[in-house]
Amino acid sequence: MVDPNIEALFKPKSIAVIGASEKPGKIGYAIMKNLVEYGYEGKIYPVNIKGVEIKIGNRVFKSYKSILDVPDEVDMAVIVVPAKFVPQVVEECGKKGVKVLPIISSGFGELGPEGKKIEQQLVETAHKYGMRILGPNIFGVVYTPEKLNATFGPTDVMPGKLALISQSGALGIALMGWTILEKVGLSAVVSIGNKSDIDDADLLEYFETDENTKAILIYMEGVKDGRRFMEVAKKVSKVKPIVIIKAGRSERGAKAAASHTGSLAGSDKIYDAAFKQAGIIRALTIGEAFDYARTLSNLPEPAGENLVILTNGGGIGVMATDAAEEAGLHLYDDLDELKVFSNYMPPFGSYKNPVDLTGMAGAESYEGAIKAALEHPEMHSIAVLYCQTAVLDPRDLADIVIREYNASGRKKPLVVAIVGGIEAKEAIDRLNEEGIPAYPEPERAIKALAALYRWSRWKARGR
Amino acid sequence: MVDPNIEALFKPKSIAVIGASEKPGKIGYAIMKNLVEYGYEGKIYPVNIKGVEIKIGNRVFKSYKSILDVPDEVDMAVIVVPAKFVPQVVEECGKKGVKVLPIISSGFGELGPEGKKIEQQLVETAHKYGMRILGPNIFGVVYTPEKLNATFGPTDVMPGKLALISQSGALGIALMGWTILEKVGLSAVVSIGNKSDIDDADLLEYFETDENTKAILIYMEGVKDGRRFMEVAKKVSKVKPIVIIKAGRSERGAKAAASHTGSLAGSDKIYDAAFKQAGIIRALTIGEAFDYARTLSNLPEPAGENLVILTNGGGIGVMATDAAEEAGLHLYDDLDELKVFSNYMPPFGSYKNPVDLTGMAGAESYEGAIKAALEHPEMHSIAVLYCQTAVLDPRDLADIVIREYNASGRKKPLVVAIVGGIEAKEAIDRLNEEGIPAYPEPERAIKALAALYRWSRWKARGR
Repeated sequence: MVDPNIEALFKPKSIAVIGASEKPGKIGYAIMKNLVEYGYEGKIYPVNIKGVEIKIGNRVFKSYKSILDVPDEVDMAVIVVPAKFVPQVVEECGKKGVKVLPIISSGFGELGPEGKKIEQQLVETAHKYGMRILGPNIFGVVYTPEKLNATFGPTDVMPGKLALISQSGALGIALMGWTILEKVGLSAVVSIGNKSDIDDADLLEYFETDENTKAILIYMEGVKDGRRFMEVAKKVSKVKPIVIIKAGRSERGAKAAASHTGSLAGSDKIYDAAFKQAGIIRALTIGEAFDYARTLSNLPEPAGENLVILTNGGGIGVMATDAAEEAGLHLYDDLDELKVFSNYMPPFGSYKNPVDLTGMAGAESYEGAIKAALEHPEMHSIAVLYCQTAVLDPRDLADIVIREYNASGRKKPLVVAIVGGIEAKEAIDRLNEEGIPAYPEPERAIKALAALYRWSRWKARGR
Repeated sequence: MVDPNIEALFKPKSIAVIGASEKPGKIGYAIMKNLVEYGYEGKIYPVNIKGVEIKIGNRVFKSYKSILDVPDEVDMAVIVVPAKFVPQVVEECGKKGVKVLPIISSGFGELGPEGKKIEQQLVETAHKYGMRILGPNIFGVVYTPEKLNATFGPTDVMPGKLALISQSGALGIALMGWTILEKVGLSAVVSIGNKSDIDDADLLEYFETDENTKAILIYMEGVKDGRRFMEVAKKVSKVKPIVIIKAGRSERGAKAAASHTGSLAGSDKIYDAAFKQAGIIRALTIGEAFDYARTLSNLPEPAGENLVILTNGGGIGVMATDAAEEAGLHLYDDLDELKVFSNYMPPFGSYKNPVDLTGMAGAESYEGAIKAALEHPEMHSIAVLYCQTAVLDPRDLADIVIREYNASGRKKPLVVAIVGGIEAKEAIDRLNEEGIPAYPEPERAIKALAALYRWSRWKARGR
């Protein structure tokens, strides 16, 4: 059953911004601006003790001096006032009947035991009124299906099927920027900060049944209730893949993490074992995490083990083959069946897998080969590789892939790697915008496909 | 001693393009265009059997019907005519006294024993006249210090200190595009194709003493004379670092490579051992190769083992620390000396290495900390990490790094990682354009720095 308070974090009918500001540069302004400019369609009520007018583009908001003055129900109240005013504001939100409180304000548990105590009192107050708290010490929340961007991070988040949860504020905002730059589509971004109340496990449970989320990516520094988190993660993993980045693998790294987060050092092996048991896919770097997230949040599960690699360059075909073998993927090798590809290559091509359409391969070769691979019942997953040549503009290849993959109903996993210059980069962006995982290197495409296989196999084993 | 014929490949005083064309879209036009537009300052003589006029921008070239008609000495003749005309053209070049012949034309050894034989005859003819052949089956040659771009690949190669050698034509052109997109500075690009005459070893020997080249990157499919290559590589490695990408590591990959190049399968372990012995740094992917090439071609060798990591985010600091420990780098840990950094951080920062300047770190914090690290005699290498925040525009950080690193005389290795969105990408590009290796992820910066350490240690051991 979905917790209605947590649902209000993603699908609020109305939002108050307490500590909203009329001054560009202030966080209380940035949140108003993102709410308006990202196109949130519910009601927005700025609350500002001086009752200022706030202009965003050509909209003017009259602010209320207290949330209690708002003449309407409020589902979510984003709190941006200085720490010392937060307890009173939480109390007022309770009286108003708000459901959920993302508390942006910092100056609580992260400062030490004193702040921690105040934080716990906030949670007690919230629970007394049946409210939940996200944070404090966060940058906000995004939910793209509702055009909700209640953060002071970047505005133009690309909609998609990946939910991103970040414990770190600074890194979380940086990662939002990264997803925009790299065309990673997101369903949600949640900054969980001090996790005084709502934590990773609560969010996993929400995303488990959220129809707009297909995969979850967590940047984690530490867990409070490890047992609960692992139990929930194991359950959710059976339904949707979870990728985690958790730094602190090495001895020195773990020590640095301990001094940074106050969590115990030396516990990384325990995390690692627990992640494996829960079916969590651990990514070692940010890049790897998003590489995996692209396949996991966009592609269907493979119906079998047979991978076909289509390429116009022997070299990149071999690179992909190395990566496939190293990642435990099986190259389909029924030569009778692979012979179908000989129709789409010159005589000196090779239909052995990796299928080498040769450097002469143009639009028709690729189109025919991709279609054949999509149609063949024994070819379960496809990697399309392209080394930029003068024969075929990579952007045209992108269009061919998009057209054929859509026409096929996207029933099997397909990844793309295009090596080249500016046009290759544009082609990659175009594919990713369409939710077809595309990469600038063959190995990255294959490793990301392998992550999908790994999750799919784990899920099947666990049943 | 430098072979004058090979020197003519990079520093020709005059160039003939035999098979030059007036038609855009033709290779014989593309080469003329690149020569002119990249700014080659020597003389260019198009040769075309019909004697056509060739217009490039507002320059008009009258072509000669034969190289023998050119009223001047010709150092290099780029040959683009169909295979069947090549033997005669080579003969004429010999009579003309040309020094070196990049043969773009394909249709020789790559087609089988028949073509191989003709190829060998071409080499015999060339040698008879004291000429050398590059290729055939190549896309040409670039040497940026002479503004020489005699390829049909992209035009705007970014000047720098890395020499790129590619056995694959298609991949080589794609990699040229990649270096432009990713701001990797090049001294040279050489397509070696069928290697009928000039091979990797010849080129390594040239680059060993080339004052414009600081590191060499080879994309290799196979070697002909393995013993000579390894001997030369070992000698050159003592002077300049060599990075090699050679696919075919896995069993299946090696088989695919064998069917693609005709080289022996299963020999990868031998290559790997030989590379290690010769001090060659093997990169497993294209991305890794260029990551390494950035540090190796731009940075001075470290004077010692002490690495200092400066960061504004605990999380990315921990990631970098993990990567450093995994790559065998030593984090400087003299707390008395590290205390200098406490001057550049708020009270809740941490001067322990990784030095956490905190999320509040602005221009002054970074400037002070970078300066202190550059000046300190016991801090031998520096990694500057930045997680994009609203406090400091990453482009401003880039400018600070460029200014301080230049002011210090670039005497110790410094790498940068900036995690974030579009502004972060711009900052990274700006740094790379200035020859300061910058990456979008902390681990990549650290691994690339580690490649420089590895090479430097190997060199020291061998003495």
